[in-house]
Amino acid sequence: MHDGRAAASPPATLGNSEFDRDTQVRRRDGGHPGLYDADLSAGWAIGEAVNGGYLLALTARALGDALAQPDPFTVTAHYLTASRPGPAVVRTDPAPPGRTLAAGSATLLQRANDGTETERLRVLATYGDLDRLTDEVRTSAEPPPIPPADQCLSAADDPHHDPATAPPIAARLDLRLDPATVGWAVGAPSGRGEMRAWFALADGRDLDPLALLLAVDALPPTAFELGITGWVPTVELTAHIRCRPAPGPVRVAITTRNLAGGFLEEDAEVWDSADRLVAQSRQLARVLTR
Amino acid sequence: MHDGRAAASPPATLGNSEFDRDTQVRRRDGGHPGLYDADLSAGWAIGEAVNGGYLLALTARALGDALAQPDPFTVTAHYLTASRPGPAVVRTDPAPPGRTLAAGSATLLQRANDGTETERLRVLATYGDLDRLTDEVRTSAEPPPIPPADQCLSAADDPHHDPATAPPIAARLDLRLDPATVGWAVGAPSGRGEMRAWFALADGRDLDPLALLLAVDALPPTAFELGITGWVPTVELTAHIRCRPAPGPVRVAITTRNLAGGFLEEDAEVWDSADRLVAQSRQLARVLTR
Repeated sequence: MHDGRAAASPPATLGNSEFDRDTQVRRRDGGHPGLYDADLSAGWAIGEAVNGGYLLALTARALGDALAQPDPFTVTAHYLTASRPGPAVVRTDPAPPGRTLAAGSATLLQRANDGTETERLRVLATYGDLDRLTDEVRTSAEPPPIPPADQCLSAADDPHHDPATAPPIAARLDLRLDPATVGWAVGAPSGRGEMRAWFALADGRDLDPLALLLAVDALPPTAFELGITGWVPTVELTAHIRCRPAPGPVRVAITTRNLAGGFLEEDAEVWDSADRLVAQSRQLARVLTR
Repeated sequence: MHDGRAAASPPATLGNSEFDRDTQVRRRDGGHPGLYDADLSAGWAIGEAVNGGYLLALTARALGDALAQPDPFTVTAHYLTASRPGPAVVRTDPAPPGRTLAAGSATLLQRANDGTETERLRVLATYGDLDRLTDEVRTSAEPPPIPPADQCLSAADDPHHDPATAPPIAARLDLRLDPATVGWAVGAPSGRGEMRAWFALADGRDLDPLALLLAVDALPPTAFELGITGWVPTVELTAHIRCRPAPGPVRVAITTRNLAGGFLEEDAEVWDSADRLVAQSRQLARVLTR
């Protein structure tokens, strides 16, 4: 991994990377408690819209500043309208904190073309301190079956890949897809609702809880492997961050079991290099067939 | 099923049952848009606290009135402080609705002993109309392995069961636990994070989306089967309601794969009598060992 854009320069570090710069939020001074200004970067766009995981990470960063605890333990986002690159505001509303957990809400807003303030997403989250959790692990979960990264496929392996026309976000992620889940890319979807990949940031920045919020929504939709070619917008996504990831890429495995009535769920697991289940997420998405 | 309290009288009907009466919310008139008064019934208490699924159903009912769509599609609740039987207020905050979906937030509040208003739970949800979904089902999910209800165990099968001292909620639910997941009750937990049961309302009222919100948090904690005897309070619970359940009891299967750092997830599936996956939920809970 990390052999793409980062090859010529040393890896970016936590706090000093594209992802850190692009998720920056600035607390607005005086008379506006809990209000943050942000700029949604075109670098995380797919088509005209900005990636949902990036939006979630940016909003979660504002909450991390507004709440009495540092780390997202459980974060839910409902996606209301498509976000566009450009200025945005995050309005936070903390609940009275508990002893070790602190909950709060946030709304991400942008001005529509006609100047009216428009809600992009609403978030509800509980934060805590991952460094204060016990080391006890009693898990029956097993890491997903995914080949080593060098046997997986990146965008560059696609003969039709053209960095000039690929979505900007593709250059920022180092995604290596399990060959068993890329049939859709060659017109032969497996029919199984599965998607697996190694995930890292292309500039080599290590992953933290905010980057995990990006990771859970960064893979191609499982719907592609079910033979669905339309858009699959997220209605709601909930992520649990269970521990701080060890350095290095993570494995992301996504499963869809129930496609019914035009909706499907995507269940994601994220495993770190120390073989720990660092995040779990589930999203409800809508199938808009072409 | 339905052979308990309801034996002497005809089954309660949708809209006219204990559950309907106890989840009632009254819109407050004049100058208080989105505000609802409620009474948390002692009938759904366990110990001093009121059951989380009941609270979720009651809050979801207020949202169903406040939002432009009738049915909860995805509902997330963060539990902040323990609710007590007695008066409560639900404050709703709808987002501008979309064409077929409508999102909104709600907060359930009660007065603490000293008279200060205290947040009990915060909810974020997206509603739609289950009757307008397509009939298409392409699912790989299979119903859980659970024996027929007459081979499962109800509270009455416990020789130590005493209706006079059992929590009030026990009389309102008709729960039949899979014998394979009740080892904890006789001091022999299986060590597997699994809990399965048939679920119905004791008065025979059929289940609807609101009752499914009760069903996903009504079983004993999976932690019991992992040998944990302490309290396992819910931090956050997200439920997806995928279709309106057919008449009759549902099967609820709950799995815990990852117990780590003092937290665990509980994944629930609810299957109706027509073998459809009608709800999925996941909660993050905290393990408070004695």
